[in-house]
Amino acid sequence: MIIVGELINATRKAVKVAIEDRDHAFIQKLARDQADAGATYIDVNAGVFVEKEAEYLNWVIDNVTEVTDLPVCIDSPSSNVIEEALIHFQGKSNKTPMINSISLEKEKLENILPVVAGTDLRVIALCMNDKGMPHTVDERLETADKLINKLLQNNVKTENIFVDPLLQALASDSSCGVTFLTSIERIMNAYPGIHTICGLSNVSFGLPERGFLNQTFMAMAIAKGLDGAIANPLNEKMMATIVTAETLAGRDEYCMAYLGAYRAGKIK
Amino acid sequence: MIIVGELINATRKAVKVAIEDRDHAFIQKLARDQADAGATYIDVNAGVFVEKEAEYLNWVIDNVTEVTDLPVCIDSPSSNVIEEALIHFQGKSNKTPMINSISLEKEKLENILPVVAGTDLRVIALCMNDKGMPHTVDERLETADKLINKLLQNNVKTENIFVDPLLQALASDSSCGVTFLTSIERIMNAYPGIHTICGLSNVSFGLPERGFLNQTFMAMAIAKGLDGAIANPLNEKMMATIVTAETLAGRDEYCMAYLGAYRAGKIK
Repeated sequence: MIIVGELINATRKAVKVAIEDRDHAFIQKLARDQADAGATYIDVNAGVFVEKEAEYLNWVIDNVTEVTDLPVCIDSPSSNVIEEALIHFQGKSNKTPMINSISLEKEKLENILPVVAGTDLRVIALCMNDKGMPHTVDERLETADKLINKLLQNNVKTENIFVDPLLQALASDSSCGVTFLTSIERIMNAYPGIHTICGLSNVSFGLPERGFLNQTFMAMAIAKGLDGAIANPLNEKMMATIVTAETLAGRDEYCMAYLGAYRAGKIK
Repeated sequence: MIIVGELINATRKAVKVAIEDRDHAFIQKLARDQADAGATYIDVNAGVFVEKEAEYLNWVIDNVTEVTDLPVCIDSPSSNVIEEALIHFQGKSNKTPMINSISLEKEKLENILPVVAGTDLRVIALCMNDKGMPHTVDERLETADKLINKLLQNNVKTENIFVDPLLQALASDSSCGVTFLTSIERIMNAYPGIHTICGLSNVSFGLPERGFLNQTFMAMAIAKGLDGAIANPLNEKMMATIVTAETLAGRDEYCMAYLGAYRAGKIK
């Protein structure tokens, strides 16, 4: 399971303040803690700083690379910022980063596609087009198919594509969980070697006991083939659920990862 | 979700002793507690009493029907005992019981099939034949197909059939979870209107933190279409997982069941 640690995101108040204050220790601790907890990528997002996004993002990357060897997941709506951050990161690490994200929206596609074309970058591909959020499974699959083909035609390898079918809140549509789960399954079956990824916490928006809902939904999504998550690796219950569900889904030979997590006190 | 409350089973020491001692209060409390906790059927099993199984089972049924209107799930390897218990239950209740179980094993099939043929009884159909436990998904599907056809030909309605694909211990074969999950999905897709059911606790045999494994696997199985479980309704975490997973699987319009369970303090 690919886990993109989501905590260094300037839409979170404490992170925004830390970036403004150039609080190295705060950012470095977030990076180190997420790495220690099992993150595979460290998401870096400074999108709230409109004028200074690139400058701040590079500063964040400096801090992350100082404390961990993990690759970053460069998270920005701007292709210029992504390109600048990419060059900056590649000057400091030989790891291949992830790009968050591309979609079938015309502007995003035209700007981000040249950045990833012909590279080994991993890229999150949102099932979104210019008509906005998809409603049905078929809409998601149609957008996914067009986007995947665009990426393949531009020499992005299947195994570097992480499709995000987009998940909506169950409180506003009680079928959106099953729509998402079915989309995951159909995408994983239709494109062997591809990945799926998502931030799952949307599903519980507006409902009580969100943590339990998110954790339960993670197990269900893993059963359907989900193999990537944008998540908080410091959430111990969620991480225990991921390890356990992966073991139950047959992705853990001899239950070695499960037993290792148990011995490390991570399954409680 | 159909929940067959599994607690009144004489393979459990305390239940065996209670039956031998004619301890009405003990058996009645188990029946009432399971009904209050959300069971749909009360499993009754006195199979350890070889000579007196029928007599003891009828006594158990007397106690169950005294405290709850729920139908029983008559659980015996013997068709004679099942027939006797069935007549006994039908003298006390107008509810339709479930029979646990039939399989493709020659003797079981020949003996149990006449009991359920042409009736409205619900029946658990094990994916087992005379070669023993199945190994692959295909073996399960092949046995399921033959058994379902036998039942249909004998005028058992599709919606009264609960297929149990049989679940083995992950500790001895790390692919048995995914084998089971795939079987559930293929059975539910191949026979519209049919049900699947299983006791899930086998999966965690020999591993630590079994409760968490079982609970996580329940969510995964519900994602794949499982709509029946032989379980302990007094296990609050398991019951919370079932309600939550059903809501996430789109089986709970407007999240009413989830919100009701939350308000009743059942989601923690």
